[in-house]
Amino acid sequence: MKKVILDLATTLDGFIEGPHGEIDWCIMDDDMDFDGFLLGIDTIFYGRVSYDAWENYQPEEHAHPEEQEFWKKIHSKNKLVFSSEKRVDERATFIHSDIAEKVAEIKKQGGKDIWLYGGAGLIRTFIQHNLIDVYRISVHPIALGSGKPLFEDLKERLNLKLIKTNVFKSGVVQLIYTPE
Amino acid sequence: MKKVILDLATTLDGFIEGPHGEIDWCIMDDDMDFDGFLLGIDTIFYGRVSYDAWENYQPEEHAHPEEQEFWKKIHSKNKLVFSSEKRVDERATFIHSDIAEKVAEIKKQGGKDIWLYGGAGLIRTFIQHNLIDVYRISVHPIALGSGKPLFEDLKERLNLKLIKTNVFKSGVVQLIYTPE
Repeated sequence: MKKVILDLATTLDGFIEGPHGEIDWCIMDDDMDFDGFLLGIDTIFYGRVSYDAWENYQPEEHAHPEEQEFWKKIHSKNKLVFSSEKRVDERATFIHSDIAEKVAEIKKQGGKDIWLYGGAGLIRTFIQHNLIDVYRISVHPIALGSGKPLFEDLKERLNLKLIKTNVFKSGVVQLIYTPE
Repeated sequence: MKKVILDLATTLDGFIEGPHGEIDWCIMDDDMDFDGFLLGIDTIFYGRVSYDAWENYQPEEHAHPEEQEFWKKIHSKNKLVFSSEKRVDERATFIHSDIAEKVAEIKKQGGKDIWLYGGAGLIRTFIQHNLIDVYRISVHPIALGSGKPLFEDLKERLNLKLIKTNVFKSGVVQLIYTPE
């Protein structure tokens, strides 16, 4: 059974972006083993806006080989886009209705896990339908005081069960939860 | 040199209270050793509102002996209240001006450490004056989606250095930082 994994970076005070979209505080260190995470997934779930922003992204020609490799890995995954729009796209499958049923079907297909990429609206929908199996939240050693909240407009409390913590040399602490 | 320690419980999404002041999600387990924390301090800093709310609090007669003991310990500490009001109070010293200078003086007195209790306005003032030596933030395994933010209206980013993490059986993760 595939798992749906939400992987997000947050500030200590619970923001995923600064008030003007800043993510420059976000640390990507070797010891975080994001490569290991990517190796464990074969599918990425996007909202339509996130998909359009990132789907076709190619690093610059002279970018660091690691960055080139990163994007090659990302673009090698199966991509599913959740959107009210019925689009046909050779690079992704668009899903525009019956989200819970469709996700249940995909999870049954087996293979590796699924990265729930976002954005915020898709994450909210997934929380409300209880479709997330693993929450991996990387708490960064900074407070911004304002910005875009981790989870917006939850209809009810989200109770979680801590299953693991990883402490990185940068001071980032990754908290891994399953739903309670 | 005394240290000023901020000790707060927060949800995963960075709230210290729910939208209606809810703190029922806040866990106080034995393995958190809050007693040990209280043993290490001899002074409590309050804002005026927090002081008036808690200073004279006495648990009910039939309350659990541990709760009785807890409040006895709290009330045995030196209490300082930061307020624009010039009040004379036999149970506390009121400080109404020159906060940074007065705090520096108190820290030089030696002895045990200081618990910066809050509320939010006092914490903000202390952050802005860089008066906090240790941040102990206990991240609870819950998201509320809305509520009272951990740090409100910071004028600038607060960069922190992680010095320790404690994982408790309840799933609470305590993150301990010093200012960067």
